[in-house]
Amino acid sequence: MTNPNITRMSTLYAPTLKEDPTDAEIASHKLLLRAGFIRKTAAGIYTFLPLGKRALSKIENIVREEMDACGAQEIRMPMLQPEELWQESGRADAYGPERMRLNDRHDHEFCLGPTHEELITALVRAELRSYKQLPLNMYQIQTKFRDEIRPRFGLLRSREFVMKDGYSFHDSQESLQEEYDKMYAAYERICERCGLEYRPVQADAGQIGGAVTCEFHALAEAGESALVYCDCGYAASDEVGEGMARPTVYDVPEMKKVATPGVHTIAELAEFLNIPETSTVKALSGKNDEGKLVVLFVPGDHEVNEEKAARVAGGFTLLTDEDMETYGLHKGSMGPVGLPEQAYVIAANSLKAVPKWVVGANEDGYHYVGAELGKDFQVDEWADIITVKPGDCCPKCGLELKGARGIEVAQVFQLGDKYSRAMGATFMNKDGKEQPFIMGCYGVGVSRTLAAIIEQHNDENGMIWPMSVAPAHVCILPLATGDDLVQPAAEKLAEELANLGLEVVIDDRKERAGVKFAEADLMGWPLQVIMGKRGLAEGKVEIKRRSTGERRDISLDALREALGFAKGAQRRWGNSLNAFSPLFTD
Amino acid sequence: MTNPNITRMSTLYAPTLKEDPTDAEIASHKLLLRAGFIRKTAAGIYTFLPLGKRALSKIENIVREEMDACGAQEIRMPMLQPEELWQESGRADAYGPERMRLNDRHDHEFCLGPTHEELITALVRAELRSYKQLPLNMYQIQTKFRDEIRPRFGLLRSREFVMKDGYSFHDSQESLQEEYDKMYAAYERICERCGLEYRPVQADAGQIGGAVTCEFHALAEAGESALVYCDCGYAASDEVGEGMARPTVYDVPEMKKVATPGVHTIAELAEFLNIPETSTVKALSGKNDEGKLVVLFVPGDHEVNEEKAARVAGGFTLLTDEDMETYGLHKGSMGPVGLPEQAYVIAANSLKAVPKWVVGANEDGYHYVGAELGKDFQVDEWADIITVKPGDCCPKCGLELKGARGIEVAQVFQLGDKYSRAMGATFMNKDGKEQPFIMGCYGVGVSRTLAAIIEQHNDENGMIWPMSVAPAHVCILPLATGDDLVQPAAEKLAEELANLGLEVVIDDRKERAGVKFAEADLMGWPLQVIMGKRGLAEGKVEIKRRSTGERRDISLDALREALGFAKGAQRRWGNSLNAFSPLFTD
Repeated sequence: MTNPNITRMSTLYAPTLKEDPTDAEIASHKLLLRAGFIRKTAAGIYTFLPLGKRALSKIENIVREEMDACGAQEIRMPMLQPEELWQESGRADAYGPERMRLNDRHDHEFCLGPTHEELITALVRAELRSYKQLPLNMYQIQTKFRDEIRPRFGLLRSREFVMKDGYSFHDSQESLQEEYDKMYAAYERICERCGLEYRPVQADAGQIGGAVTCEFHALAEAGESALVYCDCGYAASDEVGEGMARPTVYDVPEMKKVATPGVHTIAELAEFLNIPETSTVKALSGKNDEGKLVVLFVPGDHEVNEEKAARVAGGFTLLTDEDMETYGLHKGSMGPVGLPEQAYVIAANSLKAVPKWVVGANEDGYHYVGAELGKDFQVDEWADIITVKPGDCCPKCGLELKGARGIEVAQVFQLGDKYSRAMGATFMNKDGKEQPFIMGCYGVGVSRTLAAIIEQHNDENGMIWPMSVAPAHVCILPLATGDDLVQPAAEKLAEELANLGLEVVIDDRKERAGVKFAEADLMGWPLQVIMGKRGLAEGKVEIKRRSTGERRDISLDALREALGFAKGAQRRWGNSLNAFSPLFTD
Repeated sequence: MTNPNITRMSTLYAPTLKEDPTDAEIASHKLLLRAGFIRKTAAGIYTFLPLGKRALSKIENIVREEMDACGAQEIRMPMLQPEELWQESGRADAYGPERMRLNDRHDHEFCLGPTHEELITALVRAELRSYKQLPLNMYQIQTKFRDEIRPRFGLLRSREFVMKDGYSFHDSQESLQEEYDKMYAAYERICERCGLEYRPVQADAGQIGGAVTCEFHALAEAGESALVYCDCGYAASDEVGEGMARPTVYDVPEMKKVATPGVHTIAELAEFLNIPETSTVKALSGKNDEGKLVVLFVPGDHEVNEEKAARVAGGFTLLTDEDMETYGLHKGSMGPVGLPEQAYVIAANSLKAVPKWVVGANEDGYHYVGAELGKDFQVDEWADIITVKPGDCCPKCGLELKGARGIEVAQVFQLGDKYSRAMGATFMNKDGKEQPFIMGCYGVGVSRTLAAIIEQHNDENGMIWPMSVAPAHVCILPLATGDDLVQPAAEKLAEELANLGLEVVIDDRKERAGVKFAEADLMGWPLQVIMGKRGLAEGKVEIKRRSTGERRDISLDALREALGFAKGAQRRWGNSLNAFSPLFTD
């Protein structure tokens, strides 16, 4: 019988690659392929080899433990979803071509579940009848499908992936809020236990719907989302963030029209006038849904956030060139002075504190400097219409926002009654009346989290696994596998550590030391135990901590003793990369 | 924080049904629905509710433990399989419409994996290069899809189901045989640990291919396979079984032609002559692949197995009525005496010991009795051409075969090089030559096993879970939930048992005792602890063993002590329904 806590490199299927695969752009994709953790089956579709599968299971189990501790109940819904349910919810068309669809042999329509709101709502609507059965939270850890138009970045944007998705049912908003807060806290613990540096960020609900939502982003250069965050705890994607810009006041005694020949952009204007871009004001014109002319003004160093503008103005569509001509507006020199009567002027909140503006003069080749707010022009409405960026003021505490890129690893939503109402999922409330469920939904990208962990924990030599999710904790490297002393000593130590509850890899291959070292670093085992002939003769081994590169000699006895702490701790290693600190600090 | 070992009926999502669902025909389907373990999403597609999911996970973990102990490595292959791979293996058409197919948004063809021989062969062919890396055994536990034309029997024949499938790679037949034997033994342990009465049976390899194969059948009336088995260990499906029939010799001095007006069947003939059917001989005529006339003779109480006959005769197609007329043959009175010259006569092995036959006279309304073998007619070939049935002689030991119906829960195959050769998956052998892998493949129907367990373990009141796979081990039934004494005592006991490692359900609902009893029986918890006011006043509770219905009073102290045995044993309960025997035998 094989000891399940011991893995032998001689039999492990983990084919390594010497070179970075050409189609891999980011660290996690490269390293998971190079270290033999995953293999591509088709675009965006991967096989998890033994080590990849193990890391995945570790993450799954962390998620499962946290969900179970919250009283959420694990279920398993099918991947094949009847198309009728998507018709009922009204999402059949809205979801678009990312939904993979197929017909069965009787020509019934199905899709491969990208998410399960429809299924779970249909599941409970017939049988969850009374407020007495609420609240209820059910989750699954399961394969999901999204036909990404351009799958890339390995496990970050794939077409078949593993998610935990959970759904809660409530009789009131208060009850939903309570569960939402519980899930939020559980998600923080999940991120921490996985060893992630992360931020919960304000975000957009997208196709899932619902009013209140929060994304959990692992900070990483490879992330597809641009984030702003503050030490006070505020964080948001740049799409929804509410930071205030910091314009630089450029004071002149009186409004002056300046000839600015050939100046069309903010950069050109700032250079021409020799002032910072933050002293200029940018304009954008459009129409709202009622056809009314709307002109927006934002600090010159910021972009208009058209989605925000649309919410403020009641829709916002950019003017066509003909429209601009009709209104007498000039691209590249629009300004608030002398706008057509009918123009509705909206300016960014942060411009309110700027008394004099540098703006277009509504005349080709001319700008105004010192256009005075309230005297030379009026603003109809002040609003948050900018795309926030690092350096802006935090909307919560006013300090400077920092910028980062993030990988969305989880999201929590308050769905309200969007699905229950559309699909007629009601229960009898305390007053004896039928009422649609108030719902929440909670997702963790399990395979994506795996990639995010690697993005945060790697160096030029390979992966650096946090203990909590490492496919194994310790790698024993006997440097002379044929030796009468070394090999048996390595086997004995492996047994001992395995019996302490540690997961041990033993590199029992007849390979050169250099190959063993390189692959151990590549695979990222948290602790390496290097056993050489000379050291062993004195009862000593060398240990190396992958995260820091620290090495030291230690007697086998001291090593065994120091690792004794593992006993009992095996279920919860925490996220610490420092699990082996006691070994290196005496 | 919720104790994950304690389940509360007040919050558990397990909607029960009072009546058997109309579309459920067999016990497992009825009971899994009635007890709220599963719900149907579409024909042959089910959601596993919390209790169903737990039982499923228990089975998965037993399978995982046994595979890991054998050194098999767990992986996770995708469900979406590129159609090209099926073209390469040559199975694309052979597999038929059970394979669910779809195109992605770029019109690339995929199928939903019904099995993974193609994928794993493609996975290793590029990177498993040397005999030094062999043998290798990799498995996954994963969802599979088969578009059954008529899904039925709940989890027994569904369209989306959970399987463990494993594949091994070898450089020789000997190495394959070794792994096959290891897997065979592991499968026996899996069946035992799941509490199944089972038989490994000779079977047909079907579309998977390969020469050597064995199916593991759980014996159950609801099974779709007819089996024969013997106490000596022999077992086979009736399709491939090799038992010998036991004809009854009907001796008459000399061959005699008897008028048998209106007699067309064996039953009519036996009745007319007042002899047992076992004294008659049945005939069947056909053509082999070369068009040659073949006439088969089997004992009257047996059926010709046409697949066996085809293997012996080089193909076998029944004659049409016109063919029969051409040859002068008469349906209902065919016999070996006076057959056309060109007829090739094959008779069942078991007729060899019958010197005189009761057969058709090749003349409407006439039969021969006492037709003597070797004198009145000749047989060209003796062969195994019958469909075996209970009562026949065991081909291994000669004793009487028993009959049973079986549910195929697992199968092991020696694939040989069928896939590796077709798909060009080769390695460098010891002699430095490229050679296709010798492969084995090993499947367990995980969700089907769940159903098979229920088929074997149920009574009129519900399910009876073996400890090893029970969604929980003990159900505590406080009969007065509002009571100051009963409810806290129940909670305390639940905590104590949970801390011993037992999984505990507590029925903390304000329901009538009758409802609690009925649902506890329906859900099938192995042990019930019934806590009433009166007993508790004396420090006593009643315990009930679900498998036998035994009940007894026991002091709380004695119960705690007796269940102490659970400590340490929680990982391996064995398959025993008798885990609680010590409680009932003192």
